[in-house]
Order: sequence, then structure tokens, then C-alpha cells
Amino acid sequence: MQLLIVAVVFAAGLALAFAAFNFFGVKKMPEGTEKMSEIASAIRVGANAFIAYEYKILYLVVAIVAVIMAVVTTWHAAVALVIGSVMSGCAGFVGMKIATYANVRVSNTARETRNIGKTVKIAFKGGSVMGLCVGGFAMLGLFLVYVIFGLGLGQVHVTEASYTNFLGLSFIPFTMTLSGYALGCSIVAMFNRVGGGIYTKAADMGADLVGKTEAHIPEDDPRNPATIADNVGDNVGDVAGLGSDLLESFVGAISSGIILAYHMFLQSNALNFGMTQEMLEKCILFPLIFVSIGLVACCIGVASLLFKRKMSENPHRELNGATYVAAGLTIALGFVASFFLFKGEDTTILKNALGFKVGGLSPWIAATIGVISGVVIGMMAEYYTSADFNPTRKLSHASVEGTALTITQGLALGMKSCMAPCIILAAGIILSHMVSGMYGVSMAALGMLSFVAATVSVDTYGPISDNAGGIAEMSGLDPEVRRITDTLDSVGNTTAAIGKGFAIGSGALAALALMISYLYSFNEAGTDLVLNMMKPMILAGAIAGAALPFLFSGMLIEAVAKAARKMVDEVRRQFKMYPGILDGTEKPDYKTCISISSKGAIGEMKVPSLLAIVVPVGCGFLFGPEFVGGLIIGSTLAAIMIAIFCGNAGGAWDNGKKYIEAGGVEGQGKGTPTHDAAVVGDTVGDPLKDTVGPCLDIFIKIMSTVSLVAVPVFAKFNVVDLIARLING
Amino acid sequence: MQLLIVAVVFAAGLALAFAAFNFFGVKKMPEGTEKMSEIASAIRVGANAFIAYEYKILYLVVAIVAVIMAVVTTWHAAVALVIGSVMSGCAGFVGMKIATYANVRVSNTARETRNIGKTVKIAFKGGSVMGLCVGGFAMLGLFLVYVIFGLGLGQVHVTEASYTNFLGLSFIPFTMTLSGYALGCSIVAMFNRVGGGIYTKAADMGADLVGKTEAHIPEDDPRNPATIADNVGDNVGDVAGLGSDLLESFVGAISSGIILAYHMFLQSNALNFGMTQEMLEKCILFPLIFVSIGLVACCIGVASLLFKRKMSENPHRELNGATYVAAGLTIALGFVASFFLFKGEDTTILKNALGFKVGGLSPWIAATIGVISGVVIGMMAEYYTSADFNPTRKLSHASVEGTALTITQGLALGMKSCMAPCIILAAGIILSHMVSGMYGVSMAALGMLSFVAATVSVDTYGPISDNAGGIAEMSGLDPEVRRITDTLDSVGNTTAAIGKGFAIGSGALAALALMISYLYSFNEAGTDLVLNMMKPMILAGAIAGAALPFLFSGMLIEAVAKAARKMVDEVRRQFKMYPGILDGTEKPDYKTCISISSKGAIGEMKVPSLLAIVVPVGCGFLFGPEFVGGLIIGSTLAAIMIAIFCGNAGGAWDNGKKYIEAGGVEGQGKGTPTHDAAVVGDTVGDPLKDTVGPCLDIFIKIMSTVSLVAVPVFAKFNVVDLIARLING
Repeated sequence: MQLLIVAVVFAAGLALAFAAFNFFGVKKMPEGTEKMSEIASAIRVGANAFIAYEYKILYLVVAIVAVIMAVVTTWHAAVALVIGSVMSGCAGFVGMKIATYANVRVSNTARETRNIGKTVKIAFKGGSVMGLCVGGFAMLGLFLVYVIFGLGLGQVHVTEASYTNFLGLSFIPFTMTLSGYALGCSIVAMFNRVGGGIYTKAADMGADLVGKTEAHIPEDDPRNPATIADNVGDNVGDVAGLGSDLLESFVGAISSGIILAYHMFLQSNALNFGMTQEMLEKCILFPLIFVSIGLVACCIGVASLLFKRKMSENPHRELNGATYVAAGLTIALGFVASFFLFKGEDTTILKNALGFKVGGLSPWIAATIGVISGVVIGMMAEYYTSADFNPTRKLSHASVEGTALTITQGLALGMKSCMAPCIILAAGIILSHMVSGMYGVSMAALGMLSFVAATVSVDTYGPISDNAGGIAEMSGLDPEVRRITDTLDSVGNTTAAIGKGFAIGSGALAALALMISYLYSFNEAGTDLVLNMMKPMILAGAIAGAALPFLFSGMLIEAVAKAARKMVDEVRRQFKMYPGILDGTEKPDYKTCISISSKGAIGEMKVPSLLAIVVPVGCGFLFGPEFVGGLIIGSTLAAIMIAIFCGNAGGAWDNGKKYIEAGGVEGQGKGTPTHDAAVVGDTVGDPLKDTVGPCLDIFIKIMSTVSLVAVPVFAKFNVVDLIARLING
Repeated sequence: MQLLIVAVVFAAGLALAFAAFNFFGVKKMPEGTEKMSEIASAIRVGANAFIAYEYKILYLVVAIVAVIMAVVTTWHAAVALVIGSVMSGCAGFVGMKIATYANVRVSNTARETRNIGKTVKIAFKGGSVMGLCVGGFAMLGLFLVYVIFGLGLGQVHVTEASYTNFLGLSFIPFTMTLSGYALGCSIVAMFNRVGGGIYTKAADMGADLVGKTEAHIPEDDPRNPATIADNVGDNVGDVAGLGSDLLESFVGAISSGIILAYHMFLQSNALNFGMTQEMLEKCILFPLIFVSIGLVACCIGVASLLFKRKMSENPHRELNGATYVAAGLTIALGFVASFFLFKGEDTTILKNALGFKVGGLSPWIAATIGVISGVVIGMMAEYYTSADFNPTRKLSHASVEGTALTITQGLALGMKSCMAPCIILAAGIILSHMVSGMYGVSMAALGMLSFVAATVSVDTYGPISDNAGGIAEMSGLDPEVRRITDTLDSVGNTTAAIGKGFAIGSGALAALALMISYLYSFNEAGTDLVLNMMKPMILAGAIAGAALPFLFSGMLIEAVAKAARKMVDEVRRQFKMYPGILDGTEKPDYKTCISISSKGAIGEMKVPSLLAIVVPVGCGFLFGPEFVGGLIIGSTLAAIMIAIFCGNAGGAWDNGKKYIEAGGVEGQGKGTPTHDAAVVGDTVGDPLKDTVGPCLDIFIKIMSTVSLVAVPVFAKFNVVDLIARLING
């Protein structure tokens, strides 16, 4: 067993070492012309300044939550929370740092080599730092939590199954500490996603609304004062935000699996199913081993691209290749691990206590179902958002009829696109549960995320390429360079859509697994797990819960719109005050725009971020744990739908516009009213796909995690119970 | 007891007689100038033709469903279904008929009297026919079902609690027949709403897209070829559709209450709670008596306006007055009825068997909670959609920044507006359940709908006034006439928003009550009612279910857009081929436009309408009743949110545009880019608020009703069970 723990450390170490190797490998490359260097530096400074300021607020919130946690539960959990927040913060920071180095080097490689394959390699090398850091830091943190608190293997004793602190609150120290770790990651993810999401889209919309629509200058034109802010936004939103987000999903999936195993062990004891201590250890180890294997597989997948001799001219195929190597290896090696780990265990006990219907391979099958569901959901996102398929093409043609029908058709497309991925998700739940019980559902979530390092590498490749294009444009490089970066960028749009499908699919499953752990933690072991929608408290919770993601989404959209409006005013002001800007004789003031985006994002992110933390806890104290159970399930259902709707509608508008620009609609193109209508669609879609959609995925997980942490408190103290006790004397 | 049945008949008779009195009262009035008469006749012919054609398809579906029902369950249920469909069809038809008579008479009254009060009276008189018919026909049908099948009081025997037909299916004939009646109403409502909704918005959008946006001619301009179709649309969508919809809600609320009472009686028997046959009869009678009282109260409320000597210049106050009289009287008289009905019953039995916590007045309190919740939800809809309040004003100001921010801000407004009504709904459920158990929840739904005749009268007043304005415009009447009808129309917008709040609130509660009946019908009496979201089948059902209203909405929006595009093409063609139309020297071809709308609506309505019927039944046969339970709850949650979102976003865009036209945004107005942006918002909002939102409310109820009817079949025969049986030998 100790050997297996070593394997976990090895995987984390390998990933981080590889990340460091790639980091310095990219950094030592030349930046190109002085102009390029100057622009890249402006982007870097802007991104650093925002992250520094954001992290101040973020760690203040972490500190407050940690203190409350230490007082109300145990200091172990508080320390774990801090470790989680540091790991997630580091991953986001390092990833963003390398992205701001890699962007200019990608443009320079394109400039020097004029070779797509070589340019793709640099962009992917930069992206891989983020990907490997997500996997590496997450595992490192888990290891630290294990080591510091002696919660490692062989020390999980049933006798320590419950601890009652000085407030009279009972909880399981092991699961509480792990939940604390997950919560730390979640809080960082929430702020990075929401703050970064508002920043990037405020800048983007602001730049587009005046630049494209009013002044009719192209994207990334250096005359647009908001253009640097727009490029900063890619780094803080699409890189740092995405990294922390998926790290959080990854940790959530692992910890929900472990916590669930622990509860099932207690359940088994209560029901005399005969699950042994050793089996529990195996169930706790399995997720760790599976993701360690996944991480090593991702290193191999990433290396398979980076050390490839002959690259094709098709970046999409190369990137997919790396992902498929990682996913395939994860499944193959996972089979071996699962086989040896559960070999020789009593199948009757496995079946009764854990719901393993097909013996020791059950959790592996469930994880594989997760991998497949994730890939299929990703493909569906591609179907709905890529101009290669019918829905987006139909949308482009609707633009011929004007703006109103462009919007209408996009809304219809987004709404219709919810069904197919939900069917896959539903089938995934039924099948993984059939094979491997509730533990299987969380293993399916784990499966989707097991090769996260590869998917994040590919996802981060997107904004780096986008930035590289921006730098090429602003530095006035040869159009051929821009053509190369555009090829890279357009692939990035598709990979982003697929990544979003993955994120929401795994997010939904992880939230459900957390939900189950949540229910276990206030129900007696040995009773059936029930969340009865026919209880009015639960039903009422579900109705309010379903409205919550709508409220959250509305607030986010409004926040982006508000910040974007300020940006619009500033850009208009500059164009008016300094007419030389548009002639190219005067230099616009980029800094004021950066500071507007920063202030807007920081100012607007607080309320929606805190909503996810405060509402479940507040409702818990008012209405008790059952109401919160309903709240979480209602929120999860609604959030899945809105996230899919927003991601696909936004992606389709974006690609529909690109399709028109590429001449896909006969007789139309840039400058026609059809294109103008499509630009409006794209602008409307921006906050939906890049702010709302990605944030919802964290929203439901942070709600589940914070409820899981707080439930021992509000299960004991809540107003409804108090009233009931008063009435009954 | 027999006396009380007489009361039911009396109420129905009174309402229908009053409706007839108003019908002929309106019809005998003069139509005005020849031109007016001619236009009104065109609208009338168009509306009649559409309804005639739609009813053919509709009754074909009814016939098919009736035959299936007769074969699979019992012929009684099939006859009840036909009665329901005839009642609902009649209400929609009569209401539409009078609307097409009243519209021109309203313009004429305005023309002759130049008096707002007198004009309001005529419009409301026309509307009251629809309102009273809804109440009257619904009650008449219930009475017929009772009489024909001897299901009247004193004949509901527990010994007849179960019937097994030749297929070996067991069900309760009483509840099955009642469900059949409700289903008949539902099918008509579904087709009327969907068909009418597509018709009206295809015409409206088509007219606006070319007329306002391209040709810059005002609304209802006779030069616009789509303008007659637009006015026909108001009658078939907003009048006939609305009437059948609310009739269906009304019947759903009554029958779910009755069915629930019956199941609680069986439950009480199984648990030895001691509920007597007499108590059951009272519980079955209470909803009937309550709505009879409501209907009589509505007659008084309507009369209080129609026979008023001195009308104020404020139509809003007058209309509200009528509604408040009806609501207030319903509550007051309901108190008396409840008090005497349950007086002297054993409170311990009431408490244990029915959950009546505060004795015999419990169901009345629950109904009153429903009335209050309905009014508050309506007020909230007004807050979010009226230009008197901040949200819509903020939206108008966003239009200054262009189209994209108008859309974005409207989406944000709609999303944010979901929370407040959901809190009221959740509180209503908790409170009514606390006071009066599950029976209380269905009484709350009943409460919201008890004065439906008054709310429908007010709601129908809106489209009649809208049409009157159109006729005034097209006949070239004095602008003063148009000013009067505009005053009437603008009030109609607010009342429509409030009406939508009512419709979705009561729809949600009625769906929940039906859901409970559904669960009772395949679970053994005596067991606790459980819909456990932690069962994978139910959870999977809920996920697929939550996606269903999104799919349905997307399909509807697309249907409208498709039909509208055809209309746009036709209008453009006419403008191009006959340039004289725009100069006023040539007459446009209205008929082709009417036929495009009709064909579009008929063609597009089938798939979405059948979706609601086929999906739950199909899923039932595949995955069994638990999956369908999840499906319904998921659909209900999602549908509530989308309906509120669509209603409020659409309403706000519409009124935001009007606010700009009225000079609410300084320096802006008709013809400015700000107004153009607002027009796009309004056009996008049109299908959301008038097609999607209202149809969702029926969507969830028809799903619940059809599941309730089909559950005896698929509980016995379904694929999942079959496989399980095969596996277990």
C-alpha cells in the first residue's frame, strides 16, 4: 500500500517537473521585435496587476472562511482549506504567467518559421504548463493534506468515525478535512472564474461595441484603446479562470469519491454488510490511483505531441491525438490497476456494501463510462457550435433576415441543444449506478476528469493562440503570420466548446456525488438515502434552488454589461478627445481601459461569488438541511441546462459570425448588414459562453461543498427546528 | 348534499347565461363605418378559417387518444375526454367569436362617444364573455361527467376503488374518468395555445420585421400586407389560446384536488386513520363548491363594472376593481362554505388523514394562501415588466448603447426575475402544506384559479383593445380614437403580464398536485409518498425532464421564426412587385399573408404539441413510472423558470420600447437608433412572452395529466421491468 502512495507522489512530481521544464523551455525563447516585446509586456503587466489585486480580496475571503471553519469545526479542516486555496491559486498564477510569456513567443515562432506545426508546438507547450500544473498541484495538495494530518492509509480508523467539538457538533474529521481542502480550491475557482470572466468579457464587449460596430476597425486593431485590456482578459479569464475551475472539478471529483467510500463503509457497518477496513482503504485509494495514472498518461500524451518529429498542418488532429493518447492510456492502465487492486475481494460483500455488480472491475467500468460520456458530450457541443454542422450554418443564414432573427434563432439553438447532452448524462448516471452503485456515479465523474491535464493543456492553447494573433496584429506583422495564428485560434474555438461540455458534464456528476455525501452526513448510517421531493421543505428548496442559477446568471450578465458600458464610454471618449487615434497619429491610452476592466471585475465579482457561499449556509440556518438538499438538487438541474444553453448559443453565434466572414453565406461577408447582425449575436453570446456558462459549473459545486462543510452546524442549529421544538414544548 | 350539487349547476348556468347576455349585447351594437366593417369582417373570416382548420386536426388527435383510452382503460374515460375537449373547444370558440365582434365595436364606441369609460365597458363586456365561458363550460362539463357516469355524490364507493379491465390493468374508475376529462381539456388547450401562439407571433414578427424595421411604417398600417394576419393572430392566440389554457388550468386544479382527496381516503383506510365516506364526499365537494362560489363572485365582479354608472378615466383601476371584488367575495364566501361544510367533523381524523392542522377551516386557509400568492406573483410580474419601475427603465436606458446591450440587459432582467416569484411559490407550498397537507397544496392552486372568470375577462380585454386600435388605424379614424384605444391597450399589457404570473403560478401548483396523484396511483396505499431523487432512475428522469421544456421552447421559437421568415419574404415580395402599396395607390394582398400564418402555424404546431403527449408515455413504456416521476418534476422545475424568464424578459422589452416612444429616455424617441435597438428587443421578446411562456404552463400540466392517465398501463408493461424480470428469471 505504501508503494501506491509513492505512486501518487511520483505522478504529482512528474507532472510538476514536466511543467517546470516546459515553462523554462518557453521562457528562454526570443520575444521577437521590440514592438512585440513592448505589447507583450503591457499585457503581462496588466494581467499581473489584476491577479495581484484579485488575490488580495480572494485570500481575505479564504482567511475569513478558514477562521470560521477553525472555530466551528476543527483547525485541521481550516489548514486543509488554506492548502487547497494555495494549490489552486498557484496553478492559476503559474498558468497565467506562462500564457503571458508564451503568447508573444508563439507570434514570433510564426514570424520566424512560417510553419504551422512548429507554432502549434509552442502554443501547446505553453498550454501544457497550465494543464500539468492543474493535475500536479491538485495531487500535491491532496498528498500534503494526507501527510500533515496523518490521514494517510492505514490510519483511517472507524473508531475515529465521529468527533464532537466544544460546540457539541459531531462530524467525521477525515471527511471534514477533505471537504475543507475541496472548499479551498472551490473558493479560488469561484473568484478566478467570476472575476476573470467579467474582466475578459467587459473588455471584449467594450472593444467590439465601439471598435467593430461604430468605428468599423478590425479586431485587435492597435488603434482601439480597449484592445490591450481585451488581451489581458484572455489571460486572466480563459487561462487562470479555466485552470482553477478544472482543478476544483478534479479535486471535487476525487474527494467526493473518497468521502462517499467512507460513508458507504459506515453504512456497511450499520447494516452488517461486512465491508472490511482493507476494502475501505482500497475504495479510498482507487480514485487516487486512477487519477495518478491519468496524470502520468497525460504527461505521455503531452510529450507525444511536443517531441513529435513531423507535425501535420492540421492542429486539430494533433491536439486531439494528444488527448486521445492520454484518455486511452488512462483507461488501459486503469483497467490493470482496478484488476489488481480489487482482486481476491469477496464479491458478495462488494456487491452488497458498494453495489459493485460485476466484481472488482466495476469502478473501472464506471470510470470508463464517464470517459466515454465526457467525450460524447464534448462532441455534441462541437455539433451545435461548429460551422461544419447544420445548426450553426442555419444560424448564419438567419442573419440574412436581420438582427432580431439572429438572436431568436440562436436562443432556439441553445435551448434545443440541452436535450442531447442531458440524455447522455442521464444514461451515464443510470449505467454507472447499475454497474457500481453510487460510488460508480462519482467514479464516472472522476473518469471524465482523469485526463484533465490533457484537456486543460488543449484548452489553454486556445487563449494563447488568440493572444498571439492579437500581438501579431498590433505589432503590424506580416498578414501571413496572422493567417497562421488565425488557423491556431479557430481550432481553439472548437476545443473550447468541447472543453465546456466536459466541464459541465463532470461538474454535474461531481455535484451529485457531493450531494450524496451531503445527505449521508446528516442522516443516520444504516438508513436508506432519501431525498424525497414530495416533502414540502425539499420541494420548496428545489423551486428556490432552480431559480438560483438564473439569478446568478442574470447578475453576471448584468455585471459584464455594466463594466462593458463603462468601457464603451471610455473608448468613445478617447476617440472623441483624440481624433488622431483613428488616423494612427496618436497613441490611445490603454492603461485607463485596463484599469476600468480591473475595477469593474473586482467590483462586480463580489456579490455573485458570495451568493454561492452565503445562500446555502443561510438557508441551512433558516430552514434546515432538507431544504438545502432540495436547493442543491434544484440548482444543479437548472445550472446544467443554463450552462449548456449559454455555452452552445454563445459558441454558435461566434462561429456563425466567423462562417459569414469566411464566405459561408452566399453574397454576404464582412461589411454587409448580415455580418452586422451576426456581430450583434456574437456580442450577446460573449458573456453567455465565457462568463455565465463556465461560472455555473463552479457555482453548483461550491454550493454542494460549502453545504457539506456547514451541514453539521445547521443540522443542529436552525430556525425551523427551533420553532418546531418550541411548539412541541 | 344534493342541494350543493344544485349550487354547482346554478353557478355554471348563471355564468353561461350572463355570457350569452353579454355576447348578444355586444353583437347587436353598430359596427361603424363601412371601411371598419370591412376590415373587421376580414379579421373575422381569417380567424374563423384558422380555428376551423385547427379544430379539424385537433379533434382528430382527440379522437385517436379517445379510442386508445377506450380500449386500454374504459369507455367512460374516453367519453369524459371527449366532453372535456368539447367544453374547452367551445369556450375557445365562443370567446374568439365575440372578440372578433367586439373589436370593431370598441373602435366604434371610441369614435362615437370619445369617452374612455364607455369604451372600456364595451371591451370588457367582450372580454367577459370569454371569462364567463371558461368558468361556465368547465363547470358544465364537470357536471355532465358526474351525471352521465353516476359519479355524483353518494355514489363514490370504496368498494369500487379498483377495477381491472380485460388487459389486466387495474385503476380507479372515478379518478380515471376525471383524469380523462382533464386530459380532454388539456389537449385542446395545448393545440390552441401552440397553434395560436405560433400564428400570432409569426404574423406579428413578420409584420414588424419588414414594416417597422425596413419600410419604417407604423404598426397596424393598412399598407402592410401582414397587418390583417397580425390582428387575426391576436384573436386566435391571445383570446382562444388563453381561454382554453386557463380553462385547462381551472379543470386541472379542480380535478387534482378531487383525485387527491380520493387517494387520501384510500391512504387513510390503509392506515386506519378513520376517515369516513362522508368526509371523503366533503373533500371532493369542497373544491367544487369553492369554485362555484368563485364563479358567482366573478359574475358579481363583472357586473359591478358593466353596470357601473360612473366610470373613471383610469381603466386600470376599473379593471382591478372588478378583479378585487371577485377575489374578495370568493374568499369571504369560501370561508362560510368551508366553515359549514367541515363543521362538526372529528378534528383528530381531519388532522391525521388529511393533514388539516387547524380544523375544518384548513382547506379554506390554504386556498386563501393561494389567492394571495397569485396576486403577489402577479404584482412581481408587473414590477419587472412595467415601465413604472426600475428594471424596465434600466432596460430602456441600455438601448442607448445599442442592440447588443439591449438584448443582454433584457436577458439579465428575465433571469433575475425568476427568484422572487419562486420564493412566493415555495412559501405558498410550505405554508399551505403546513396548514392543510398535500390537499392544501392543491387547494392553493385552486385558490389562485377560483376567480379565473374575472382574470380571463380582464386578460381578454387586452387583445380586444389591441384589435380595436388596429381597426381604428386601418380605417383611418381620427387620431383621437386611436389615442383612446391606445390607452386601453397599454393597460392590457400590464394586465397580460399579471395574468401570465397567475397562469404559471397556478400551473406549477396544479402540476404538483397532479404529480402527487400520479405517485399515489402506482404506489400501494398505506405507504409513504416518496419521490426519491437519489434513485438513479428518478434522477436521470429529472435531468432529461429539465431539458424537455428547453427543447420544447427551442422548437417553438424556431417554429415562430420559420413562419415569420416566410411572412417576411412575402411582405418583401409584395412591396417589390407592387411599389404602389407603399404610396397607398395599390391595395396589398392580405389573404396570402393570412394563409402563410395559418399554414405555418398548423404545420409547425404538431411536433411540439405531440411532444408533451408522446414523451411521458414513451418514457413510461421504456423506463417505467419512476423515471416518468422524475421527468415530470424536472420538467416542472425547468418550465416554471423558463416561463417566468420569457414572460418578464419579453414584457420588459415590449414596455421598454413603449417607454422610449413615450419619451422616457431623454433625447431619444421614435426614429432614433435607441428606438431601433428597442424594437429589436421587442421583436426578440415577442415569441418568448406570447408563445413560449404561455405554452409551457400547459406543457407541464398535459405531461402530468397524460402520465396520470397512462400510468396504469406502463406501470404494468415497461421495458426496464421486462429486462429485470428476464434477468431474474
